Amino acid sequence: MKAVYYRRNKTIEMGDGTASAPGPGELRIEVAWCGVCGTDLHVYLGHMDQRVADPQILGHEMAGVIAEVGADVTDWRVGDRVVVRPLDPCGACPACGAGHAHICQNLKFLGVDTFQSSWTVPAHSLHRLPENIGLELGALVEPLAVACHDVRLGEVREGEYTVVIGGGPIGMLIALVAKAAGARVHMSEVNAERLALARELGFDAVNPLEEDLAAHVEEQTGGAGADVVFEVSGSAAGAEAMTQLPRTRGRIVVVGIFAERPPVDLFRFFWRELKLRGARVYEPEDFEKAIAMVSEGRMPLERLITDRRPLADLGAVFADMASGNAGMKTLISVKGDSSG
Amino acid sequence: MKAVYYRRNKTIEMGDGTASAPGPGELRIEVAWCGVCGTDLHVYLGHMDQRVADPQILGHEMAGVIAEVGADVTDWRVGDRVVVRPLDPCGACPACGAGHAHICQNLKFLGVDTFQSSWTVPAHSLHRLPENIGLELGALVEPLAVACHDVRLGEVREGEYTVVIGGGPIGMLIALVAKAAGARVHMSEVNAERLALARELGFDAVNPLEEDLAAHVEEQTGGAGADVVFEVSGSAAGAEAMTQLPRTRGRIVVVGIFAERPPVDLFRFFWRELKLRGARVYEPEDFEKAIAMVSEGRMPLERLITDRRPLADLGAVFADMASGNAGMKTLISVKGDSSG
Repeated sequence: MKAVYYRRNKTIEMGDGTASAPGPGELRIEVAWCGVCGTDLHVYLGHMDQRVADPQILGHEMAGVIAEVGADVTDWRVGDRVVVRPLDPCGACPACGAGHAHICQNLKFLGVDTFQSSWTVPAHSLHRLPENIGLELGALVEPLAVACHDVRLGEVREGEYTVVIGGGPIGMLIALVAKAAGARVHMSEVNAERLALARELGFDAVNPLEEDLAAHVEEQTGGAGADVVFEVSGSAAGAEAMTQLPRTRGRIVVVGIFAERPPVDLFRFFWRELKLRGARVYEPEDFEKAIAMVSEGRMPLERLITDRRPLADLGAVFADMASGNAGMKTLISVKGDSSG
Repeated sequence: MKAVYYRRNKTIEMGDGTASAPGPGELRIEVAWCGVCGTDLHVYLGHMDQRVADPQILGHEMAGVIAEVGADVTDWRVGDRVVVRPLDPCGACPACGAGHAHICQNLKFLGVDTFQSSWTVPAHSLHRLPENIGLELGALVEPLAVACHDVRLGEVREGEYTVVIGGGPIGMLIALVAKAAGARVHMSEVNAERLALARELGFDAVNPLEEDLAAHVEEQTGGAGADVVFEVSGSAAGAEAMTQLPRTRGRIVVVGIFAERPPVDLFRFFWRELKLRGARVYEPEDFEKAIAMVSEGRMPLERLITDRRPLADLGAVFADMASGNAGMKTLISVKGDSSG
């Protein structure tokens, strides 16, 4: 089978991988499509060299078809169309014991390796794709499940004024899921292309470098402030804005990954009794919710797919992303390059 | 009547005040005892010169007896023993409309002026003291109501491992209220006197400058981390510790007042899906809870009273506090100096 490897120093190599036969409780999947994620880009740029192997196969936003079923697997058959929830909790730590296995204190990620035509995973990680979801849109289930998790933890209710700080793929999906929950969604984004897309998707969108975001939100909410703010930028400016925008007892959900510790206005938390919570990855119900939302077909997910490329182009795609090309989501056709 | 005035530049003057006759819906109280609060000290030190008058009467932790009843007041009589919840919400802003009048966007504090023998307040601010609560302990109801509010918003449940960062009067009261709710309470405090008092009161107490607080909490909780952390120090070190201590999905309550924006580990919020909320002053139910707790007589509140002084000594008390004397709570006998 074909696979693409990260070899340090922004080097991507195409090679032949070995398909692993599934052991007990496992299945082997023929991967069809795989999305390129910001995490993959971080690996490509060398930011995670201490955590990844050399060679390392990348990719985790995938959809595919079961090709082989291991022993002791009863619920799945060859030909079933699936997505993988790529989390491998230890089952023994206090977080797992408290029912928070998705953020297990010893959490491993399955593979982070679906830019290959064949992937062997445990049965507990699979979710079934209904007939009406193509494998291409199926590759968006994983990032959509992130957004479903974030909006669920944010307890977004109908009619609530919601601000999303940062309009990349996850921010845009959060905005779409919040809108589907009945929220009034406002987007804050500095990139002109992304601003334009946010407006096309029907969001009230502002560039905070050009307009006073806090004044805008205050005016839009009759002086109350936002009910919910999602911080998805991971930037110091976002950490500053997130405390200025909420109403008394308003909620903040931190989704962005902060490599550094920004100054945070803790006085504002005290003064307005604000609430904040962090949100990371997803739980099984978030995958089911995401699959149901794609199946219902009411969200303009096609609009988020910027490009479709063959597996052999992956190195060029990373180079393009690294140069600051702010496209939304590139899907890689994995099967098209597979030699089996 | 006698009153004590703040006159800028760490100057306290004793003088004659004018007792205001109560208008419609108001009552005049003869103040008996009044506690000295950190906020009063901030005023004395000049930190709040832009927000207070000159001359300004200080004090808000009081208990007294109704001396005069205004028109249209039906529920109160001369001789009733009371405490005052010194909040004056506007009733018209979005926060008031949403039921959060205690943190009204235009909140005024009643008086901040009970270091005087006579105080006229609206009836809505009063809470009745039961017969078995003396006026001296009654003066502790207001700070205890702060602690009741904090513990209620922290949703502390029986058996939960709770850390209080900062062992001043509010921190100590939070620890006592959390303990009364059945929590295992750990105190972090750098002052030797306060550490000793925390241990006398039965708390597991550590000086974080001498012992690794995070390692201690991890060891005490089987590697899980704390269920709830109260940040009451308002310090950068406290803001750092508060994110290190909680378990996955653990709660942080920010009670301390942060004059500056400390660096905050937002990655940790993401990684462990931590929750944080700010907590400020109190709601009516917190006063009722505090009064019930004092009435039950099961908390060692007497132990928090470091000193009892006449009104004329207030300047000396402030000077002592400003010099770093870390006593817990000084009560001022207001009536004893009253000339009526």
